[in-house]
Amino acid sequence: MGKTLAYKILENHLVEGNLTPGEEITIKIDQTLTQDSTGTMVYLQLEAMDIDKVQTELSVAYIDHNTLQTGFENADDHAFIKSVAQRHGVLFSKPGNGICHQLHLENYGKPGKTLLGSDSHTPTGGGLGMIAIGAGGLDVAVAMAKGTYSLVAPKVIKVELKGKLNPWTSAKDVILYVLQQLSVKGGVGKIVEYTGEGVKSLSVTDRATITNMGAELGATTSVFPSDENTKAYLKSQGREEDYTPLAADPDAVYDQELIVDLDKLTPLAAQPHSPDNVDTVANIGEIKVDQVAIGSCTNSSYTDLMKVAAILKGKKVHPDVSLVISPGSSKILTKMAENGALADIIAAGARIIENACGPCIGMGQSPKSGAVSLRTFNRNFKGRSGTLDADVYLVSPETAAISAITGVLTDGSKTGQPLPEIADTDFEFNDNFIVYPEGTNTENTPVAMGPNIKPFPRNTALPEKVEATVTLHAGDNITTDDIMPSDSRLLPYRSNIPHLANYCFEKIDKDFAGRCKEVGSCAIIGGDNYGQGSSREHAALAPLYLGVKFVVAKSFARIHRSNLINSGIMPLVFENPADYDDFKLGDKLVIENAQEQVKSGVIEIKNETNGKTYRTATNFSDLEIALILKGGKINYMKG
Amino acid sequence: MGKTLAYKILENHLVEGNLTPGEEITIKIDQTLTQDSTGTMVYLQLEAMDIDKVQTELSVAYIDHNTLQTGFENADDHAFIKSVAQRHGVLFSKPGNGICHQLHLENYGKPGKTLLGSDSHTPTGGGLGMIAIGAGGLDVAVAMAKGTYSLVAPKVIKVELKGKLNPWTSAKDVILYVLQQLSVKGGVGKIVEYTGEGVKSLSVTDRATITNMGAELGATTSVFPSDENTKAYLKSQGREEDYTPLAADPDAVYDQELIVDLDKLTPLAAQPHSPDNVDTVANIGEIKVDQVAIGSCTNSSYTDLMKVAAILKGKKVHPDVSLVISPGSSKILTKMAENGALADIIAAGARIIENACGPCIGMGQSPKSGAVSLRTFNRNFKGRSGTLDADVYLVSPETAAISAITGVLTDGSKTGQPLPEIADTDFEFNDNFIVYPEGTNTENTPVAMGPNIKPFPRNTALPEKVEATVTLHAGDNITTDDIMPSDSRLLPYRSNIPHLANYCFEKIDKDFAGRCKEVGSCAIIGGDNYGQGSSREHAALAPLYLGVKFVVAKSFARIHRSNLINSGIMPLVFENPADYDDFKLGDKLVIENAQEQVKSGVIEIKNETNGKTYRTATNFSDLEIALILKGGKINYMKG
Repeated sequence: MGKTLAYKILENHLVEGNLTPGEEITIKIDQTLTQDSTGTMVYLQLEAMDIDKVQTELSVAYIDHNTLQTGFENADDHAFIKSVAQRHGVLFSKPGNGICHQLHLENYGKPGKTLLGSDSHTPTGGGLGMIAIGAGGLDVAVAMAKGTYSLVAPKVIKVELKGKLNPWTSAKDVILYVLQQLSVKGGVGKIVEYTGEGVKSLSVTDRATITNMGAELGATTSVFPSDENTKAYLKSQGREEDYTPLAADPDAVYDQELIVDLDKLTPLAAQPHSPDNVDTVANIGEIKVDQVAIGSCTNSSYTDLMKVAAILKGKKVHPDVSLVISPGSSKILTKMAENGALADIIAAGARIIENACGPCIGMGQSPKSGAVSLRTFNRNFKGRSGTLDADVYLVSPETAAISAITGVLTDGSKTGQPLPEIADTDFEFNDNFIVYPEGTNTENTPVAMGPNIKPFPRNTALPEKVEATVTLHAGDNITTDDIMPSDSRLLPYRSNIPHLANYCFEKIDKDFAGRCKEVGSCAIIGGDNYGQGSSREHAALAPLYLGVKFVVAKSFARIHRSNLINSGIMPLVFENPADYDDFKLGDKLVIENAQEQVKSGVIEIKNETNGKTYRTATNFSDLEIALILKGGKINYMKG
Repeated sequence: MGKTLAYKILENHLVEGNLTPGEEITIKIDQTLTQDSTGTMVYLQLEAMDIDKVQTELSVAYIDHNTLQTGFENADDHAFIKSVAQRHGVLFSKPGNGICHQLHLENYGKPGKTLLGSDSHTPTGGGLGMIAIGAGGLDVAVAMAKGTYSLVAPKVIKVELKGKLNPWTSAKDVILYVLQQLSVKGGVGKIVEYTGEGVKSLSVTDRATITNMGAELGATTSVFPSDENTKAYLKSQGREEDYTPLAADPDAVYDQELIVDLDKLTPLAAQPHSPDNVDTVANIGEIKVDQVAIGSCTNSSYTDLMKVAAILKGKKVHPDVSLVISPGSSKILTKMAENGALADIIAAGARIIENACGPCIGMGQSPKSGAVSLRTFNRNFKGRSGTLDADVYLVSPETAAISAITGVLTDGSKTGQPLPEIADTDFEFNDNFIVYPEGTNTENTPVAMGPNIKPFPRNTALPEKVEATVTLHAGDNITTDDIMPSDSRLLPYRSNIPHLANYCFEKIDKDFAGRCKEVGSCAIIGGDNYGQGSSREHAALAPLYLGVKFVVAKSFARIHRSNLINSGIMPLVFENPADYDDFKLGDKLVIENAQEQVKSGVIEIKNETNGKTYRTATNFSDLEIALILKGGKINYMKG
C-alpha cells in the first residue's frame, strides 16, 4: 500500500509509538521556531529545565509580534529572548527582519524536515515539503531540550488540485475554498496533503499561503510535495543544496479526499467573523471599503507584494480607503526597494509599516468604528482587529489591491485590468538581522529579566478529589482570542501571567477573572471546537493561574487541548453533548477518585447543584495521563 | 534704522497694534496647519464657531501623530478630521503621507508668508523664510475662522553664522550649540533670526532643522533669509514660482546677538533629560547604545536620510542596537525606494516604520528598561520615550547612524570614515495622499463623530471672588508632557478630555486629578518656565476640566500661557519669586474683586492658610483681559 508524503516524513522521524492514526507517537524534531509573544514563556520554561544547548539541528527565536513598543515591556522581552538564545545556542532574529514563517521559509526550512513552532501558523513550512507543526510553548521548549515531540498520529486528507488558476485568482482563494468546503474544524486531528497536476502551477510561496492557512481548518499541519518549484525557490534563496525531491506514493491511501478545480475558482472572501464564512467576491457585491491591509504570514511573499505593486502602479488609493502594507521580510523589502516596486506602492498612497505581524494580530492599524476592512490575513475573528464592531473580510492580495483603488470590494477579473505575471527573483544572502550564539561560554550570558517578566504559573499534582465551581458556560468555537485576548493593550504583558489573567475571557464575560479568584477552584463548560485559533499557551496559563481545574466541552481544538494538559488542566469531552445544557454558572462540581478515573478513560463528574452525574471522555494518551497526574509538563520533566 | 527680516514679514501682515517688542499685535495669518493629536480639538472648536469656509489662503489638516491605531480611536479621529476638513475647505493629508512640518515645507510653505500651526514645531517653516508660529489649538481655530492671530510682538535675537560646517557636523549640531548657549528659556518672547555668511552653506532642510528646534529655546519662532538655496529647494519641489528673495536690512538692529563659528563645531549631543544639556560627543565618551532612532520633524529630510544611507551602506547594525527609522514624507521614501538608498538602509539591519512622528512623541519604539537611546529628535524629556528610566540623547543623523554601527556613542569625525556630500534632488509632484475639499455643498458633509470624541470643556465668566485650593506645588521647567502626559496609552484620547484629565500631572503627582475633583476649585503653584514643550492645549483643557482657576508661577512658556488664557485660566507671575516657597499643598487661596484686579495688572492673592497676601503680575494685554473676564476664547468669540 502506497504511503502518503506526510507519513513518509513522520516515519523518518519516528522515535516511539505506532504510526497509525489515533495512536500516540513521538517524533524527532529537526528545527524549532518561536516568536516573541509566545517565546518569552517558551524560554522561561526552557530555563526552568536546566539545559545547556538545544538538541535540535536548528532553533530560531524570531521577534515579529510585539514590535510596536508602546512601553518598555516589548524591548525588555526582546532583550530577554536575545540573552536566552545566546545561552542555549538559538539563532536570534532581530525585530525588523520580518515575520517568522516567511523568514523561516526563506532561510531555514528544508523539505523532509520536521519543524515545531510556538505559533499556530508554523505549517507555513509545509509549502516546502516539511512536516511543520504549531504547538504550545512548553512543547516547543521540550522539543528544544530533548529534540522530540509527542502527538496523536493524524489522519491524512488528500486535496487534489486540478487545472490552473486564472489571473486575479490565487493561492489565497484556494485555501478559502478549502475552508468553505471543510470548515474551521474540518482539519482537526488531520494532516492536509496537497497533490495533483495543479500543484506544479503553484510556487512555494503560493503553497505556503495554503499550508499556512490550513491552521484555520484546525489541521495538525498541511504539506505539499517537494518538486522542481521547490528547487527553484531554494535556489532563489541561495540554498539549492537544501533541496530533496519528495512526494506521496502514486497509490497512497488517504482517509478523506477533496478535489479542487483551480480553473473554476473565482476571487473569494471570508466574511465576518470566521475564516470559513466564505463566498465569492461577486456574490458579496461591491460593499464600500474603509481599510485595506496587506501582509501577514499568509500573504506577504515577494510575488504577493509584487502583484500588489503592479496593480497600484500609477494609480491612486481611493480617498476613503486607508491602505496599509506590512511586508513579510527585510529581504523582500530590500528587493522591492531596489526594483522600484516599493516606490510604486508608496507613490500610490499606501502606508508602509514595519516588517512584522502588525495588524494581523491587532497590533496596530485598528480600523475605525463600524469599518469594513479587507485583509490578506488568516483570521477575522470578531474584535481581533482591535475594533470590536469592524467587519473584516479575508481576501487575496490581488482583491485587496484592486479594492483599495476602487474603494469597494472588487473582483479584479471583472475590471478588465490586465494583471502581469510576476516571476520569482533571486535574493542575496543577508544575515544582518541575525544574532548568532557565538563565542565561548555563551551559556554564561546573563539572563536579561526586565521588570515586566514574571515567573510562569505551576500546577500541583492531581488530588484524589477535585472540587470546582463552574465560572463560565461558553458557546461553540471559542477561540484562544476569546480565552486570552491578544490585543495591542495586552500583548506587551505576554511575559506577565498575573497581569494577563485579569483579562481572561474578558470579551465574553468581564467578571470571569474576579469570579475565579473568589471561588479559588474552577471549571469551564464549553461547546464545540473549544480553543480554536492561535497556539498561545497563555490561554491555558491564565486559567491555570486563576484556578481552573478542568474544562468540559463538546470538542477541543488540538493545540489548545495540548496546552491545557501541559498545564495540568483536564480537557474533558461530554459523552452526551446534550449534557452541555444541564450545566449552569455557579454549579458545584466534584470528581471523586480523580487519579483512578484519569487512568480509566472516562471521568464521572457529579454536579452537586443539580444532583446529577455526567460521563465525560478523556481520550488521554499514556503520556497525557502522566502529565495530568503530575500537574503538568514542567513537573513531569522535573520528575 | 534697518529692519530685521522678522519685522519686515510681521509688518506686511500687521492688522492691529504697534509693531514694537512687548506690544500686543494682531497679524494676518496666510496659512494654518494642524496635526491630528491637537487637531481634533481644533476642529471641534472650529465647528463650535459656526463658520463656513476658512479665511486663510491655505489650511492643511495633517495626520501624523496618532498613526499606530492600537484601537478604533485613532482611525475615528482621522475620519472626524477628514469630514470637517471637507466641510470647511481644508486640505486633508492622509496618514502615511508623513510628518506635517516636513510635508508643509515640501509642498506648501512660501517665503514671506505667515503660518500658524497647532504644533510647537511649526517654526520649521522658518527655514523657508516664513514667520511660522506654533500656537494652541484654539488660536489656530480662530486663525482659520478669522484669518488673524494676536500675539505680543517679540524681541529679535540675531544669530550670526560664520564659516562652514565640517563633515560629520551638521545643522543639528548648530541648534544644539545654540541651545547650549541660550538654554531652553533663552528664546522666550523672542524670534531667532539667522544671518551671516554661514547661511548660504545651509540648505533649506538644514535651516528647517535649526528653526524647528528653535521651539526648544522657547522662542516664538526662528527665521532664515530666503535666498538662492531657497529658490533651489522650491524648484526641486516643482514650485519655483513660490520663491521670493527675503533678507534683513544690512543695518538691522537686534535686541541680542550670538555668533556661531560653524567651522569650530564638533558633533554634539543633548544629554538626559533636557535639550539644552549639551556637550560634545567626544566629551561624553563612547557610552554603550541600545537603541538608535532616526526621523522626526527635526531630522527626516531627504539629505538627512541619504546621509544615513551612505553611512550604513554595506555595513551591519551592531547586534546590540535596535536601529529604527521613521522617514519624514512619502515623497522622500518614494525617492529613496527608487534610488537604492532605502535598500541600503534595510539591508544593513534597520527597522523601517511608518512616515510619522512615531517614537519622537513616544508613539512606539520605547527602548528597553534603563536603555541608552540616541535620537535625532527634538526633545529628551524624562519619560517621553515611553520608558521612564531610559536615557535619551539628542544627536544628528550622522552621529546616530555611525553609532548604530559601532554600538557606542561615536564622533564620526574621529572614525576616519569618509562621508559623501549629498546633493538635494528633484521630486515629482504627487498628491495621492491628499484629499481635496472638492465638490459642491461640501459644507453639508456630515461630521464623523466616533464614540471616543467628546465635547471640549468650557469655562464660565470670571466671578467677583475666586476661591481655590492649592492642589499642586510644582518645580521649575514643568513641561506640557508633565501636565498632560502624551504617551502611546493616552494619545488616542486626545479628543476625550474627561478621560485624559484623569492622568493630568500623573508623572508628578498621581493624586492630582483626584484631589482636584475633591476640592472642585483649584490653583497650581509653579516655578520657572512653567508649561515649556509641546503646544498641546490639552495641558490647559484638562486642568480646566478639573477646576483649575489660576496658576501662579515664576514664569511661563509662551504657548502654554496663551492656552491657559484661552481656557479662561489665569497665569499669574510672582512679583517676588521667593514667595513661591511660602505656598503649600492644600493652602486655601482667595482673590477678591477679581474682575477689577484682572484689569489692573496686579492681582493680590490672599493665602487664608498662612494669613499672608501675595502680589502677582498678570502682564495681560487688553485682549487677554477680555478673554479672562469672559472665561476663555470660545465664550469671547461667541460674544
